[in-house]
Amino acid sequence: MSGLPTVLERARLQELLDIAPFHQWLGLKIQSCSEDGLELTMPWRAEIISNPVLGAAHGGVLAALIDLTGLYTLLMLGTRAKATADLRVDYHRPATTGPLVARGQVIKIGRQLSVAEARIFGPDDKLLASGRGAYIC
Amino acid sequence: MSGLPTVLERARLQELLDIAPFHQWLGLKIQSCSEDGLELTMPWRAEIISNPVLGAAHGGVLAALIDLTGLYTLLMLGTRAKATADLRVDYHRPATTGPLVARGQVIKIGRQLSVAEARIFGPDDKLLASGRGAYIC
Amino acid sequence: MSGLPTVLERARLQELLDIAPFHQWLGLKIQSCSEDGLELTMPWRAEIISNPVLGAAHGGVLAALIDLTGLYTLLMLGTRAKATADLRVDYHRPATTGPLVARGQVIKIGRQLSVAEARIFGPDDKLLASGRGAYIC
Amino acid sequence: MSGLPTVLERARLQELLDIAPFHQWLGLKIQSCSEDGLELTMPWRAEIISNPVLGAAHGGVLAALIDLTGLYTLLMLGTRAKATADLRVDYHRPATTGPLVARGQVIKIGRQLSVAEARIFGPDDKLLASGRGAYIC
Repeated sequence: MSGLPTVLERARLQELLDIAPFHQWLGLKIQSCSEDGLELTMPWRAEIISNPVLGAAHGGVLAALIDLTGLYTLLMLGTRAKATADLRVDYHRPATTGPLVARGQVIKIGRQLSVAEARIFGPDDKLLASGRGAYIC
Repeated sequence: MSGLPTVLERARLQELLDIAPFHQWLGLKIQSCSEDGLELTMPWRAEIISNPVLGAAHGGVLAALIDLTGLYTLLMLGTRAKATADLRVDYHRPATTGPLVARGQVIKIGRQLSVAEARIFGPDDKLLASGRGAYIC
Repeated sequence: MSGLPTVLERARLQELLDIAPFHQWLGLKIQSCSEDGLELTMPWRAEIISNPVLGAAHGGVLAALIDLTGLYTLLMLGTRAKATADLRVDYHRPATTGPLVARGQVIKIGRQLSVAEARIFGPDDKLLASGRGAYIC
Repeated sequence: MSGLPTVLERARLQELLDIAPFHQWLGLKIQSCSEDGLELTMPWRAEIISNPVLGAAHGGVLAALIDLTGLYTLLMLGTRAKATADLRVDYHRPATTGPLVARGQVIKIGRQLSVAEARIFGPDDKLLASGRGAYIC
């Protein structure tokens, strides 16, 4: 990945992230930006719960995290990813406490389509969900 | 699919759906339940927006709709689907107004894993997103 | 899907299909072409077996069938689909005898990316596998 | 992944791999087995070509490689993975010469479902395709 534009600064990427009202509702905070990947966190909030007995977060919220973490991993690297073409998520364990930590990595930067993966961890660093998005350039 | 238990009544399925705080936040309403599939609607709300220029809903919200529509299509038919194993979503057009309409259909009811698909339409009945979930029984 | 180019004739689509040596190896035959979808068949051959105890076909062969059935469903409709961007397959039952029947349908024809789904049935018309491809235009 | 059974020896895993006639047809050879992952190679053969102009391998063959590499990565680690539940493949570049190199890694070993990923490289070590399988235990 030599020749890529410089990695965006954290403050600049946080600004881009905050443009989306849904991201603000999720309370996302970028923790680190580097060529190796992106890390962001999402605090817990009561409205994201799906199963009140387990107190587990809704799979759709984890899917949203994977989608946006993949996209912003690409944007961080200067890739002109515009929109998600498709998204695939594997659920590994219930997410029952926050903050959730999402880590994104690039799989392939292409001319028409780029692919990035993201993994979501709980506060104990256990893998809760993981997946990939393909993003139109 | 002969021999399946009777289709759950709409009011009963709505009760099950409303157990999840995230579903309440999304404002989901079941419109119809039958052997042919499930239809539910989600009103628009400002917090779901991702792109404020387009006014487009976040892909993660559409992913949540596909996930839960697939799951409740199985539950409607008496299938003991417990949790989403994995989810796949294709994005076709930006979702810019509501209410969104989600329609679910069963692909396969299995002993260990069942698969259902869901399609999301805008108020003009255009296909916005579609996909599938695999659910652990 | 009004305004689509005329559906390709079966003989012409068979010619296109036969260009690929792998398709010839699989022995694919187009059975029907229409606006409603594509149907093709694949005979059984011993080399496709994965599990010799069950006599079951390899999942990768079924994945190939889903991939190509989706692509040729788009080509049949005059869509300029060039290559598979990504593929997703659900396995429902072991495929233990042939011929296998694959049926394809369009989900969405887009400018950059089109999506089609395919389902594979056994000689008894039971659903063995199903899935989707996204194809670059 | 502490407490996992010892990694299977290469010769033993090759024996398991060779049980499948389709694997023999593909000519698969296990190159290395370790806790870090599995590597296997597939020689080129004329029958796998899809696009004779480019001389590119069929996407279905790459899908088969990803499927089986994920499964044997789990088997190598003593996981009782029985069958592929579902498979997802991203295509990054045409595969035009061999041998192809497939590398598998575990994402999550679960009680009902395990997930592994695989990446396929050309002789020049460029990433050609990548993806994941979910396998029923």
